[in-house]
Amino acid sequence: MIRHVALFTWTDDATDEQKAAVATALATLPAAIPQIRAYTFGPDAGINPGSHDFAVVADFDDLDDYLAYRDDAGHQAVIAEYIKPILASRAAVQLSL
Amino acid sequence: MIRHVALFTWTDDATDEQKAAVATALATLPAAIPQIRAYTFGPDAGINPGSHDFAVVADFDDLDDYLAYRDDAGHQAVIAEYIKPILASRAAVQLSL
Repeated sequence: MIRHVALFTWTDDATDEQKAAVATALATLPAAIPQIRAYTFGPDAGINPGSHDFAVVADFDDLDDYLAYRDDAGHQAVIAEYIKPILASRAAVQLSL
Repeated sequence: MIRHVALFTWTDDATDEQKAAVATALATLPAAIPQIRAYTFGPDAGINPGSHDFAVVADFDDLDDYLAYRDDAGHQAVIAEYIKPILASRAAVQLSL
């Protein structure tokens, strides 16, 4: 299994509407990309100071399925239209489990 | 459910032995902390450039269980003895799912 983890911080001038639109757009992907086995995402819960602002954890059966997701045109459109305009920083890891 | 996600980068002078010791130490925690529902961790798989070096994804039934893990003395000892000596940067999010 490949578990893809990505954490984002948003720009200071990102609006609540822009932040919410990221989640709304990501929520469309599991129905559109059959390679996704499990998909969790959302804003930081605000428990600890200094956290990043948003997380995505996505599970795939294997590397090919992860790459299909990574390079999917619909996924890339979500990144370009909703994430990149408010992205301040990104941290990511792929775990091979 | 609370899903805790933490990504680390290691210092340039961290040795392979030090990096491996982090995983060995983390592997002891699920048996020691009964609040952990699921625990995945490991080094980045090397698929994409610019990734962080290591990830932990830990699931808990609720906030109290996450806090018990966060503040557990054995967990704090792993952080102090194995992670902090080679830690260059850390990114974390807690998802409320």
